[in-house]
Amino acid sequence: MGGTWEALAAKKRQDLLNSIPEEWRIPDHLLPPVSQNDITGFPESSGWFTREELDITNSTALELLPKLANGSLKSETVTRAFCKRAAAAHQLVNCLSETCFDRAIETAKALDERIARGLGPIGSFHGLPISLKDNFNLRGLDSTVGFTSLVGDPARDDAELASLLIKAGAVFYVKTNVPTAMMIAESVNNTFGRTVNPLNRQLTSGGSSGGESALITFKGSPLGVGTDIGGSLRIPAACTGIFTLRPSFGRFPTLGCRSGLPGQEAVQSVNGPMTRSLPDLEYYCKTIVDSEPWHGDPRCLPIPWRRIVMPPKLKIAVLWHDGIVLPTPPVTRALRHTIEKLRAAGHELLDWSPDDHDLGLQLLGRMFVADGGKSVFRELGKTGEPLRPEMADYAEARELGGFEYWQLHLERLEFQKRYLDRWKKAGIDAILAPVTPFSSVENGKFKHDNAEAVHGMPVNLQLIAQRLEEEKCIEMCKVIVKTLD
Amino acid sequence: MGGTWEALAAKKRQDLLNSIPEEWRIPDHLLPPVSQNDITGFPESSGWFTREELDITNSTALELLPKLANGSLKSETVTRAFCKRAAAAHQLVNCLSETCFDRAIETAKALDERIARGLGPIGSFHGLPISLKDNFNLRGLDSTVGFTSLVGDPARDDAELASLLIKAGAVFYVKTNVPTAMMIAESVNNTFGRTVNPLNRQLTSGGSSGGESALITFKGSPLGVGTDIGGSLRIPAACTGIFTLRPSFGRFPTLGCRSGLPGQEAVQSVNGPMTRSLPDLEYYCKTIVDSEPWHGDPRCLPIPWRRIVMPPKLKIAVLWHDGIVLPTPPVTRALRHTIEKLRAAGHELLDWSPDDHDLGLQLLGRMFVADGGKSVFRELGKTGEPLRPEMADYAEARELGGFEYWQLHLERLEFQKRYLDRWKKAGIDAILAPVTPFSSVENGKFKHDNAEAVHGMPVNLQLIAQRLEEEKCIEMCKVIVKTLD
Repeated sequence: MGGTWEALAAKKRQDLLNSIPEEWRIPDHLLPPVSQNDITGFPESSGWFTREELDITNSTALELLPKLANGSLKSETVTRAFCKRAAAAHQLVNCLSETCFDRAIETAKALDERIARGLGPIGSFHGLPISLKDNFNLRGLDSTVGFTSLVGDPARDDAELASLLIKAGAVFYVKTNVPTAMMIAESVNNTFGRTVNPLNRQLTSGGSSGGESALITFKGSPLGVGTDIGGSLRIPAACTGIFTLRPSFGRFPTLGCRSGLPGQEAVQSVNGPMTRSLPDLEYYCKTIVDSEPWHGDPRCLPIPWRRIVMPPKLKIAVLWHDGIVLPTPPVTRALRHTIEKLRAAGHELLDWSPDDHDLGLQLLGRMFVADGGKSVFRELGKTGEPLRPEMADYAEARELGGFEYWQLHLERLEFQKRYLDRWKKAGIDAILAPVTPFSSVENGKFKHDNAEAVHGMPVNLQLIAQRLEEEKCIEMCKVIVKTLD
Repeated sequence: MGGTWEALAAKKRQDLLNSIPEEWRIPDHLLPPVSQNDITGFPESSGWFTREELDITNSTALELLPKLANGSLKSETVTRAFCKRAAAAHQLVNCLSETCFDRAIETAKALDERIARGLGPIGSFHGLPISLKDNFNLRGLDSTVGFTSLVGDPARDDAELASLLIKAGAVFYVKTNVPTAMMIAESVNNTFGRTVNPLNRQLTSGGSSGGESALITFKGSPLGVGTDIGGSLRIPAACTGIFTLRPSFGRFPTLGCRSGLPGQEAVQSVNGPMTRSLPDLEYYCKTIVDSEPWHGDPRCLPIPWRRIVMPPKLKIAVLWHDGIVLPTPPVTRALRHTIEKLRAAGHELLDWSPDDHDLGLQLLGRMFVADGGKSVFRELGKTGEPLRPEMADYAEARELGGFEYWQLHLERLEFQKRYLDRWKKAGIDAILAPVTPFSSVENGKFKHDNAEAVHGMPVNLQLIAQRLEEEKCIEMCKVIVKTLD
């Protein structure tokens, strides 16, 4: 393997830092002190960014795209600005895993050339830098998902989703950090170490898409794509106060993404956008589905992006807690505030019982380790890398036999049917719920909150629609966001 | 268990025969000799059926439904006619597993009462008798799927699909025989014995939906529902010359059906209609999907029944053989004849290579026995019932561990992606292929054909569309059937 796991990790980290050109390395005298928690003000206050760089990187995707399409902004300019801000983010919160800055600039130049030659934009994302979570394969780059064993194993092909984005004109420039196997709720691993929260570096940016959430919150990316199997989009979005959509399986292509648990299908991993704006999120979803991803991914469903006629009055069930953990007061306050606004706007709100949520959690846990943890230990074993303490469950896991596996499927189906029947009987449009019991937590303490530590942090909620109701879910979020305005 | 498996089986068979009332037992002097192979002419030639009974049972579903809806035919009359013909079928080819004649007539009367009171039809299947394969749960009836261990274990609830059909006005009167665990390509088990082919009793009616195919071919049912996991709709339809659609998983509800391999999800079982007419088949599919089955089955997809705009010229790939077995001359002749007609009608035909078909078959086999055969042996063990020789694979199966199971999923996904890419590259609309290498085979000899034995038997072909293209598949079949007229 060419060295111990520590050496592999150290070299990989150094290679990553080395990939940042001199011009994008924060001068020592400008570096904020290690004790400074909130570093989101750094780009504006440091004087290290030009006005143009700040204006570009402070923009949403939908603000940039028309300008990129009509040539009033060059993709090269936009790409360089985001490369610089992403590089800064990495130096401040350790959020990247891979860079391809040179390739990005070449891509941007070629797209600018199209516009200059009057050929018009190549697609709906013409010239826009888009960041990807580490596990999306990009040709020539690693997808380690945190394992030292996967260092130096560059992808031969682009992930299916990456191919669609490239066709639509996206410019890839960075991939972002994840926890080991993407199976920890913070973004920490033995290769790249820990990503911290730009809003408060004492806190986590969540996981497993926590490199993305940190990068986007720092405005080092206008739009990123993460993945989710048990909260991996939702938790990091909540920890950093951004938007995400955890779609149903089959809506967006998953082919060519590295999994932390390859071949595990009892609960399917999905990917979705992470943005600072809800319109950006909707635009992304519509663009991907309009590109008909089912032609390239055999597990994608041929369901077009549909126009939704919304009921004038929504019926929303409120899940105050999951029956296992009570949310902290700021989260409950956010729920209460939202509900009052919705009620005042004429919507119907009702309480939702957490029946079966403990069973759901238990089923999920059993599915994740049905291989007895072998998939994780196989990778660790290749370099002698130790299991991270957050993943102790994997050491205790017992491998299921095929027969037991089948019985687990039956338990899950019964659970799903009960939940569906409860939903239908209540006649609700959605469930409004906390995402995590807290806004964020101190690094390394995912299950333990400290009220003082999260002072001033944003609080996210989640809105849950039925399976394959992505369009309706977004429309309902618009209603709620408008009500809160 | 209240007796040996032989005693349980003997009693169950006797109970089934006893459930046929005297009026529907074929008088001894009318019984065709055991040596008579084709008994499809019996209803017309025996004199035992009235003209009205014959006219009703010779009709398609779409001929009966308008009359049932406007009251010009009573559901009771129609139901009694099909009960009698189904009872006759059972006495001649052993195709039933359960009956509920009394309940059927009560249901029919209640539906007639609606019409008499001017309330109009209750739904799209108002008053129509529909037969179901044994594994659809119907309250109060067994669903043994051939196991003696499941004799005397009546269902507490109706299967989801059965509920939808009841709401649409269907009248259930019989369930039909299957092979043990529905995992043999003929319909034979230790409880009910063997179903034979009404077109030639020396031959099989196929499996696992072979009770259905036999019943429908004998016109003991205007429309039946079977299931398919590895050919269980397609093989019996081919062996008897009727229509079927093997839908994509998620199109029709599967909840509340007894599985032969409960909890096995790597390859999903589906259900679909079996009919003597293509318009009947289309009507069934549209009716079920229009009833929005996703509200009751969490695994159903919310995809409405879509209108298809057909390309004026179809591009059809022809799979002459699967690379494992060469079809018998009648099957190849049928393919060649169809292709010539399609070509003459201006469609584009090309040859399709059986690349990967051997791998597909191998993957399927490994998935079926990933539990090491435990699910099957658990049922057999309860009564000491022996494994049928057709299922020898189950005795040799090695249970997969969770980790191996995940690797199998990965192999399957690669296989699926390769096939999808091949399909897209060729730009085809469909694949036209044999169903089985023969029209049917002698009972008990599923893998060995005898040209003389199948003289005069119908030959079926199958048209394969992409996943979730049920509407297009049916439209294309209409084009082909018209071309052959």
